Amino acid sequence: MTDLASRAAALDAEHSSTDRRSAFRIPDGVIYLDGNSLGALSVAAAETAADVVSRQWGEQLIRAWNESDWWGAPERVGDRIGSLVGAGPGQVVVTDSTSVNLFKAIVAASRMRPGRSTVLTDPDSFPTDVYIARSACELLGLTLELVPTPEAPARIAELGESLALAAYSQVDYRTGEQWDLPALTRAAHDVGALVCWDLCHSAGAMPVGLDEGGADLAVGCGYKYLSGGPGAPSFIYVRREHLAAFDNPLAGWQGHADPFGMSTDYDPAATITRARVGTAPLLSLLTLEAALTAYDGLSIEEVRARSLSLTGLFIEALDALGVDLPLATPREDARRGSQVSLRHPEAYAVVQALIARGVIGDFREADIVRLGFSPLYLSHADVVAAAEHLAAVLEGREYERDEFRARSTVT
Amino acid sequence: MTDLASRAAALDAEHSSTDRRSAFRIPDGVIYLDGNSLGALSVAAAETAADVVSRQWGEQLIRAWNESDWWGAPERVGDRIGSLVGAGPGQVVVTDSTSVNLFKAIVAASRMRPGRSTVLTDPDSFPTDVYIARSACELLGLTLELVPTPEAPARIAELGESLALAAYSQVDYRTGEQWDLPALTRAAHDVGALVCWDLCHSAGAMPVGLDEGGADLAVGCGYKYLSGGPGAPSFIYVRREHLAAFDNPLAGWQGHADPFGMSTDYDPAATITRARVGTAPLLSLLTLEAALTAYDGLSIEEVRARSLSLTGLFIEALDALGVDLPLATPREDARRGSQVSLRHPEAYAVVQALIARGVIGDFREADIVRLGFSPLYLSHADVVAAAEHLAAVLEGREYERDEFRARSTVT
Repeated sequence: MTDLASRAAALDAEHSSTDRRSAFRIPDGVIYLDGNSLGALSVAAAETAADVVSRQWGEQLIRAWNESDWWGAPERVGDRIGSLVGAGPGQVVVTDSTSVNLFKAIVAASRMRPGRSTVLTDPDSFPTDVYIARSACELLGLTLELVPTPEAPARIAELGESLALAAYSQVDYRTGEQWDLPALTRAAHDVGALVCWDLCHSAGAMPVGLDEGGADLAVGCGYKYLSGGPGAPSFIYVRREHLAAFDNPLAGWQGHADPFGMSTDYDPAATITRARVGTAPLLSLLTLEAALTAYDGLSIEEVRARSLSLTGLFIEALDALGVDLPLATPREDARRGSQVSLRHPEAYAVVQALIARGVIGDFREADIVRLGFSPLYLSHADVVAAAEHLAAVLEGREYERDEFRARSTVT
Repeated sequence: MTDLASRAAALDAEHSSTDRRSAFRIPDGVIYLDGNSLGALSVAAAETAADVVSRQWGEQLIRAWNESDWWGAPERVGDRIGSLVGAGPGQVVVTDSTSVNLFKAIVAASRMRPGRSTVLTDPDSFPTDVYIARSACELLGLTLELVPTPEAPARIAELGESLALAAYSQVDYRTGEQWDLPALTRAAHDVGALVCWDLCHSAGAMPVGLDEGGADLAVGCGYKYLSGGPGAPSFIYVRREHLAAFDNPLAGWQGHADPFGMSTDYDPAATITRARVGTAPLLSLLTLEAALTAYDGLSIEEVRARSLSLTGLFIEALDALGVDLPLATPREDARRGSQVSLRHPEAYAVVQALIARGVIGDFREADIVRLGFSPLYLSHADVVAAAEHLAAVLEGREYERDEFRARSTVT
């Protein structure tokens, strides 16, 4: 047994209480480092999807709205996600996509801060965040300023009372850098502005502490670390004290206080239900609910400890194996999400060569090899094996093969 | 055999080529007259849902975006729906909910008609249509006028060039009355305005003729007659000549011309793809795609002929059985969608009593017993049996029982 292999074995033993691999169906021969893009299928998700289709839809038909409480699912699943992101009950609902929820959050935030002219976001946010912020600002007559996260506190202070909202991501989707949610939130609050956090790359992998950190609004993804399935609906958090003022620009009937009263006037529910719009995709929503049972019995702090141990070991293994690619991800635990990104001029081909070896990660423009470490179903042994495969791809210059350089449409 | 039963048998024989009952899984003992609210499960839908979960998601994992062409699904399914609503390829995409799509359509339409101040819709539209139109108008600084559909052409002529958009439903969700799509469209075009049609209660049950009728924009539901499953995503139609001007206010990354280029600037796709926003709920979307195979080999005109035969026989049976409740639905074929609604002061309890007999319909405020006739899986024998059950409920005053009068939260 190599030194790395014994180190992995020791860490797997140490973290055995957080190993949920048996709850998931990972194909044989695959080391799946893309759970930050599409989380893996769990046994519970598969079983529930089948039950929703065959029994609830197929047999209960329309009665499933009551008999299987489809109607309450967006809030019920929202509360479960809330418990993973530090939000007390009644502040999170699952609905729509992240982009759509961000639009609601930005418009609603601006309405809570009338007379303020500016919204800030990071130019290196996942692009949809920038596009949606710009779209919302155009409709609202506001100015969108693109300010990188490290410079945001200073710019927030300069803007003062002209700032309505700072919309930032907790973890950078490419580099995996984790930003300081409470500090940036405080900076915005110091000038009376609001903050909306995008949790797509943090929810389910680390403590977020929305309530404790003072966050006003947040959105996040159901299909990355939460493993809810492809295109699982997104969640939106509205801090309790903002609920009454949350004016949803997508005022759909499912956010109404009395949705079956069929009134012509929109009277929003007093609760987080007001962030709902139309009918949620129930196959996807209820499959997400089932996937969340993988977290049962685990605290998010335990999940974080396992995540840091996995990413830490991966970096340690790269060092030990002499892989000298520049790390885009910080080495310090406190600044690292649950992924490790490396830079390589042929990053696309490196990722393809890894996939050919059964190590599935992804490529992000322009030069990022992005490897996500979904803590629930990866072992330290997987991590060491992945590092060894990467070392072999580089050592053998496998990325120079034509088959790996040829681009397909979706990466 | 009663006269009605032999009439049903004759009609079932006459329409046998459009009988798709065997493609669906209708529970034994159920006559399902709520397919206009939640279409029934088909064999293909169940099989595909299982395949998407276990093989595509579970085994292909992230590679399914290419290997199972998840990326192209919104347009691929859109084109299939397009073929059912009279839209040539490249004008329909499946994404989001109807409410969200209506928001996009209204904002985009107003941007195609700058300087015009007014949007019209029917006060008796399904409420979400009114709420969303009002929300969009508030953001845009436009005036929403609520004008019943029969009065719309006259009001449109009065408004003239101040009208930006008329947003109407082809079939009234409560009464099942079908409106004249080409005529109202012409009235709007006569003053240079646009029309957006809500097809929730027509798509899949009758010819819509979007291209032929001159419609500019349309939205519709995937889970009613199309039987895509609970909360299946909605579709949006943008007439080809408007695509270049369709400015989506929900400018998400999946509508970008180069979504993986990760540019900070939003450059919308030249095609209907620009109406996409975030990641679609793929379990729901691909299940919808499978459900649409029930239409394979059928023209929508044949489906309509079967639908009219079913609803016509139901009305005939009510007459023959002496059921004298007021019809909310027109008797004339050309003015009737694929449902029959009756008024009764205890409509809620009547519906519950029918459900107890295995005839599933629904109640709509304030006094509507709404019975939908999904043409693909209902027979004329079902229709006669349903009419006989209704006659028995009324004759026996079953609706007076406490168990049927007690309201549950969701109807």
